[in-house]
Amino acid sequence: MQGEIAELIEVGRRLHLRGWLPASSGNLSAKLGEGRVLITASGVHKGHLTCEDFVVVDWQGRQVEGSGKPSAETLLHLAVYRSLPQVGSVLHVHSVSSTLLSRLAQGDVKLENYELLKAFGIGTHEACVRVPVFENSQDMRELSQQVEQRLKQEQVYGFLLRSHGLYAWGRSVEEAYMRLEALEFLLECELRLALSLKYPHA
Amino acid sequence: MQGEIAELIEVGRRLHLRGWLPASSGNLSAKLGEGRVLITASGVHKGHLTCEDFVVVDWQGRQVEGSGKPSAETLLHLAVYRSLPQVGSVLHVHSVSSTLLSRLAQGDVKLENYELLKAFGIGTHEACVRVPVFENSQDMRELSQQVEQRLKQEQVYGFLLRSHGLYAWGRSVEEAYMRLEALEFLLECELRLALSLKYPHA
Amino acid sequence: MQGEIAELIEVGRRLHLRGWLPASSGNLSAKLGEGRVLITASGVHKGHLTCEDFVVVDWQGRQVEGSGKPSAETLLHLAVYRSLPQVGSVLHVHSVSSTLLSRLAQGDVKLENYELLKAFGIGTHEACVRVPVFENSQDMRELSQQVEQRLKQEQVYGFLLRSHGLYAWGRSVEEAYMRLEALEFLLECELRLALSLKYPHA
Amino acid sequence: MQGEIAELIEVGRRLHLRGWLPASSGNLSAKLGEGRVLITASGVHKGHLTCEDFVVVDWQGRQVEGSGKPSAETLLHLAVYRSLPQVGSVLHVHSVSSTLLSRLAQGDVKLENYELLKAFGIGTHEACVRVPVFENSQDMRELSQQVEQRLKQEQVYGFLLRSHGLYAWGRSVEEAYMRLEALEFLLECELRLALSLKYPHA
Repeated sequence: MQGEIAELIEVGRRLHLRGWLPASSGNLSAKLGEGRVLITASGVHKGHLTCEDFVVVDWQGRQVEGSGKPSAETLLHLAVYRSLPQVGSVLHVHSVSSTLLSRLAQGDVKLENYELLKAFGIGTHEACVRVPVFENSQDMRELSQQVEQRLKQEQVYGFLLRSHGLYAWGRSVEEAYMRLEALEFLLECELRLALSLKYPHA
Repeated sequence: MQGEIAELIEVGRRLHLRGWLPASSGNLSAKLGEGRVLITASGVHKGHLTCEDFVVVDWQGRQVEGSGKPSAETLLHLAVYRSLPQVGSVLHVHSVSSTLLSRLAQGDVKLENYELLKAFGIGTHEACVRVPVFENSQDMRELSQQVEQRLKQEQVYGFLLRSHGLYAWGRSVEEAYMRLEALEFLLECELRLALSLKYPHA
Repeated sequence: MQGEIAELIEVGRRLHLRGWLPASSGNLSAKLGEGRVLITASGVHKGHLTCEDFVVVDWQGRQVEGSGKPSAETLLHLAVYRSLPQVGSVLHVHSVSSTLLSRLAQGDVKLENYELLKAFGIGTHEACVRVPVFENSQDMRELSQQVEQRLKQEQVYGFLLRSHGLYAWGRSVEEAYMRLEALEFLLECELRLALSLKYPHA
Repeated sequence: MQGEIAELIEVGRRLHLRGWLPASSGNLSAKLGEGRVLITASGVHKGHLTCEDFVVVDWQGRQVEGSGKPSAETLLHLAVYRSLPQVGSVLHVHSVSSTLLSRLAQGDVKLENYELLKAFGIGTHEACVRVPVFENSQDMRELSQQVEQRLKQEQVYGFLLRSHGLYAWGRSVEEAYMRLEALEFLLECELRLALSLKYPHA
C-alpha cells in the first residue's frame, strides 16, 4: 500500500501544479488486493497530500482503515472499478476545461481525429471518442448506477459531471495519469474552439 | 507567530507562481492572539517573502511591531476580522481573472451550480454564491466600512474591488488558501465565458 | 551517448512543464556518429524520462540498441536528418497551439514580421516564414517521403501534422529546443488571433 | 559585479518560467559604476544563464569585458540609462501579450484605472499610463534616438516594440523585475479584452 500512496501523492502534486485540483476538490484512488480501495480523504488538499490523508474502503464503500472520512464520491470510484475489472486507479479532477466544457456541452463531448486519441490504445487518429456528460447530483448512489450502466455498455475512457469535473482511469496509477493528461489536453482544445464560436469546429 | 509567518511565506510563494501576486501587489494576514494581526509590509514582493517583510498591528490598525510600513489596505483586513470573528486569515491577490471580471461585472458576480461551491461548506452545487464588487477607492476608511456593513448583513465568502483584485479568508491560513483557490477557479471560469460573449452563460 | 541522453531527459522535463508532452505523446531524438540515431521509446512519458526509455536505430530505422520499441514516428525524424545533414536533434511535441492551429489552418501557417523570426538566424523581422501543415496519416513511410521532399525543396524550420503536433530541429539539442520554443511562441500568437476572429490579423 | 550577475541570472530564470523569454530572445542589463553596463550576450538562452553569458559595455556600447557578443539591442538599453539617470536595471522580454498587443494597438497602449498602476509609484488608480509602441526596426541607432527623445519628454514606465516585445526598468534589478511584472499583468488584461472584441473596454 505504501507504493500506491507514494504514487498518488506525486500525481496529486503534479495535477495541482496544472491547476486541476483547486481547494480540496478532486479525489485519487488505487485498487488494492482483496477487494479494497485506497482513496484520498474528504476535505484535504490533494496537491499537498501526506500519508494521513488516505483511507481504505471495501467494495461496498465501507471504511476499513484510516482516520479521515472517505470522499462522498467514493461510490463513483467503485462504480468504475466494478464496471471495468482491469482498472487499477481512478483519478478525478476539477479543471477549468472540464468544468466549462461540461457546462457548454449538449450531450456527449466528441473528440474526433486527434492524433492524441492514440493515447487510449486506439490504432488510428481517424476515430471518435465520446466522453459522456452526466448531470451533476449529490445522490451518489443513483449517479454511480448511471455511470456503471454506461461503462458496461460501451468503451468509455473518462466521463464528465456537469459543472463539476472529469473522471479518468487506467490499469495503473501511471496509466490513469497519462490518460487523464490526454483527456484534459483534448478538452482544453475543444473548449478553446467552443469559446471562440468555432465549435464543433472547422 | 513564527508558525503564521512560515505559513504566509509559503502561501505567498504558491500564489505568486500562479501569477496572482504581480509586482508588490496583494497582502496576506493572520490573526494573532490578544487583538493583534500579522500582515505583510507595504511595497515588498509577496512571492519572495522573508521574516522581515511582516508587521504586527492592533485592532485599530496601529503598528505595534516590525520595521516595515503596514499596507494601506490593512483596514480592509481588519474589517473582515471585525465582521467575522471566526476568521483567522485574510488573503488579498491581484489576478487577471479577478481584475478583469470585476471590470466587466455589473453588480455582484454570481457563481451558480458549480460543484466547487461545496468548497465553501455548502452541501449542494445547486446554490448561488454572490461575490460583491465594491468600487475601488483610495479612501480605505470608507471602503472598509462598506465591506464591514455587507459582511455583517449576509454570508459572503470573498469580495472583489473593481479593477483591483480579490479578498478571501478562512478560519486558518490553510482554509483561506483553499477558499481563495476555489474563488479564483470559479472567477476564471466566469471570465472565460464572459470574454467569449457566452455570458451569463448557456 | 550519455551526454545526449542527459540533454534529452532535461529537455523532455522542460517541455512537459509547458504542457507540450501530454500522456506518452511526442518523441525526442539526437543524431549519434556512424549513421545512428538516439530516440525515445514508444509509449513512455517524455516528461519523466530515464536512461531505459531510449533506443538506438540505424539510418533505415532498424533498432540496434535498447529494449523498448522505437516510436512509429522514427521515420519522420529520419526524414529530417536525411534531408538536412547539418541537423543534430529533432523534437516533436503535442501542444494545444500546434494541435488547434493545424486544425484551423488552410495551407501553410505564415509567420510574418515577428521579431522572434530572428531566432531562426534570419537577419530581419521583415520576413515571412512558412510552416507547412501535412495531413496526418498513420502511413509513416509515405508521410516521411512528403516531408523529405518539402524539406529538400525549400528552407523549412519546422512543420505541423494536422490535429497532431509540431516538429522542430537544430544542429544541437540546445538549438532544437530554442527553435521549438520560438515556433511554439509564434504559433500561440497566431492561435490567439485565429480564435478571436482576428485572423490572419490586423 | 558578481551581485548583479547573480540577480540577473535569477530574474532570467523566473521570467523564462513565465514564458516571456522564448529561445534566445530578450536581454537583461544592470548599470555598474563608472559608466559601464553589464548586459547578457547575444544568442544565449536567458532562462538558463551562467556567468559566461554576460558582457560589459561602456556608455557608447563598446565592449570592454566578456567573450560573448553584446546584444544588438544594447543601444536601446543605453538609451534608457542615458534618458533616466536614476535607472539601475533594464529588462527586455518577448511575451505573447506584449507581442500581440503591440501588433493590435494603434498608437500608445493606455492603461487606465487599474489599482496595479500604483506599482509605478502613482498614488491613485484613477490614472492613465501610456505605454508607447515604437515601430520595430533593425536600425538600432535610429530606434534608440526615438526612445531617448520620448523618455526625456514625458514620464514613461516601459515601452513596446511592435511585434517584438516589452522594455521595462527600475532603480535596481528588483524594482525593474517588479515593474516588468506589473506591466506584463496589465498588458495581459488588455490583450484578453482586445481579443474578445471588448476593447478598449466596457
